[in-house]
Amino acid sequence: MKQKLSGSVVRSDLKLSDGRTISYYDSKQIDRTAIDSRDEAAQPGIGHLRLDALVNEWVVVASHRQHRIFLPPKELCPLCPTTAEKKTEIPDSNYEVVVFENRAPALRSPASNWALPSITGIDTPDADAAGACEVVCYTADHNTSFAKLSIQQIRTVLEAWKDRTAELSKLPYIAHIFPFENRGEEVGVTLSHPHGQIYAYSFLPPRIEQMLGAAAAHLKRTGRVLLDDVIAREVKDKERVIAQNDEWIAFVPYAARYPFEIHLAPKRSVADFTQLDDAQSQLFPPIAKEILARLDGVFGIEMAYIASWHQAPVRSGRDSMRLHWQIVSVRRQPGKLKYLSGSESGMGAFIMDLAPEQSAQQLRDVEL
Amino acid sequence: MKQKLSGSVVRSDLKLSDGRTISYYDSKQIDRTAIDSRDEAAQPGIGHLRLDALVNEWVVVASHRQHRIFLPPKELCPLCPTTAEKKTEIPDSNYEVVVFENRAPALRSPASNWALPSITGIDTPDADAAGACEVVCYTADHNTSFAKLSIQQIRTVLEAWKDRTAELSKLPYIAHIFPFENRGEEVGVTLSHPHGQIYAYSFLPPRIEQMLGAAAAHLKRTGRVLLDDVIAREVKDKERVIAQNDEWIAFVPYAARYPFEIHLAPKRSVADFTQLDDAQSQLFPPIAKEILARLDGVFGIEMAYIASWHQAPVRSGRDSMRLHWQIVSVRRQPGKLKYLSGSESGMGAFIMDLAPEQSAQQLRDVEL
Repeated sequence: MKQKLSGSVVRSDLKLSDGRTISYYDSKQIDRTAIDSRDEAAQPGIGHLRLDALVNEWVVVASHRQHRIFLPPKELCPLCPTTAEKKTEIPDSNYEVVVFENRAPALRSPASNWALPSITGIDTPDADAAGACEVVCYTADHNTSFAKLSIQQIRTVLEAWKDRTAELSKLPYIAHIFPFENRGEEVGVTLSHPHGQIYAYSFLPPRIEQMLGAAAAHLKRTGRVLLDDVIAREVKDKERVIAQNDEWIAFVPYAARYPFEIHLAPKRSVADFTQLDDAQSQLFPPIAKEILARLDGVFGIEMAYIASWHQAPVRSGRDSMRLHWQIVSVRRQPGKLKYLSGSESGMGAFIMDLAPEQSAQQLRDVEL
Repeated sequence: MKQKLSGSVVRSDLKLSDGRTISYYDSKQIDRTAIDSRDEAAQPGIGHLRLDALVNEWVVVASHRQHRIFLPPKELCPLCPTTAEKKTEIPDSNYEVVVFENRAPALRSPASNWALPSITGIDTPDADAAGACEVVCYTADHNTSFAKLSIQQIRTVLEAWKDRTAELSKLPYIAHIFPFENRGEEVGVTLSHPHGQIYAYSFLPPRIEQMLGAAAAHLKRTGRVLLDDVIAREVKDKERVIAQNDEWIAFVPYAARYPFEIHLAPKRSVADFTQLDDAQSQLFPPIAKEILARLDGVFGIEMAYIASWHQAPVRSGRDSMRLHWQIVSVRRQPGKLKYLSGSESGMGAFIMDLAPEQSAQQLRDVEL
């Protein structure tokens, strides 16, 4: 099945041998027909949602995932294209960008009668861990990184994020869609091939509940969108802005939690990926490359990071929540990491040793 | 100045050369008079509280702390007693338990007119980072751990926690008191000498706000204390209980977030440390030793952990929040850590690969 997307990108859907769908995203005319010739594998079971009644938060218990692959050598990488010697997750011998369901997903499609239990404290029943966990392979090249992709390649990744957000939003059990990338062994990455993930939750994640509360309160109090006002402050203050073009602005947030934290947002704000227009989509790749190059340039090493896309939930906060990209690095200095220890982990109270204005200066000072 | 505490423990207060107070806690009759003969050091400045308006949470910006000591060799340890060759933070040549203010505190005593600004979104002004950060040295012996302390020594530590909670509660700018211990380089420990810390916040930390909300709602709905009902469920289910005695019970919580997470709570619940009676205080050391020995026994290695004491805030939730100890380990398997990556860090949504019942079984199976 083929589908035309914006930016001249075409999606081709095929099936893997265990029934999962794999979607190829191509900016060039290519027929995708390679068949997955691996043996059929049994689908793993589904995890559970348990309520932590002390804070009224859902925790996903996914004990079927214990034996994931851990940092395989390059010749065993499951995200490289298939070769004569090795069958991988991607049956074709090359690809531009592919997306497929995680082989050991923490969240997956539930039975058709699934419903999230309403929260009633300790008595709240468990539920199947409904949702989706997808892998987004950014390139067939094992030895590169998002920052080094071509402008076209990043545009194709962006079209994949837009398309997956649109598709996952159609599923009745999906409440929130979260594209992200963990990079570096320091943040627990188990596969070094350049890739991100998409978690689609069947509940509102705790952080989103909070963002929603703050954004809705701001809208009610001022009639304005919170992120618009946040960006207006950054533009006025200037000293934390690190890059911008006609459509996007990147800054270290006023109350950054990590030594190097960058937020990137469209200047004309949108609720989620599906609302980005062509002008915004065209100007995302160059600024994405620039800010990640600045991050790597601070210490002259590939920085470990967690890059999180925040967008409005599928069915709430569409008027108040806005799309933005949050990139946090755990590196404080060469050879020193920031750890989430007692205050952050136990209390959620962050202590920042580097002033946001200092890290913004360091990021601006990088020569590209 | 000397003060008699419960458990026959005596506190002696002296001044360090830079004006900080050091408190010795002794179960034996000892005169503490050793003078700090180091040069006077200037007190560092005070940090700032900045509001993260996207979630309405305070972040502490403490950029004066960048140059802390990082894992010094034993011969330079500032938490060992002073010797003829080396002057440390503890002027005496020996000690049982001492508490003193952190030399580079993220939170410290503010000017007398200090007040926490009320939260008004983006317009919320900064404030000085009022509070206190204290170091609790568990023993003069550099090469041991909390789990290996004697019963008497742990009782003295407990009396120090009780006393510090009582003393810090008297300060008008303190809202919440959080004793904790980070152990292991895996969680960023910068000093290997057995010690914990106490952070006393001038605001309610985000995690406490949430616990308070859940506990208050439960009290209103049921007339009962939430932690009492949580413990009743653990007693009924049995399978997650790992140790108990007449006064305390230890269990893996129903919705654990970490591969090895242990909660320890008094069976007769209390709001905070100051309410523990003598029977409870006497039976804490043996069960504390047991659960930490079980934790170290799972893989036969000293487990890295974060041990957090949760108690009711100083001025709110006294009727609904209850004292308990939460110990979380980031080790999943020998050689594998749990990292807070995208879902946990970006969304606050925890994915647990090990069922709480499995880890409880492993902890019970340890031969002591």
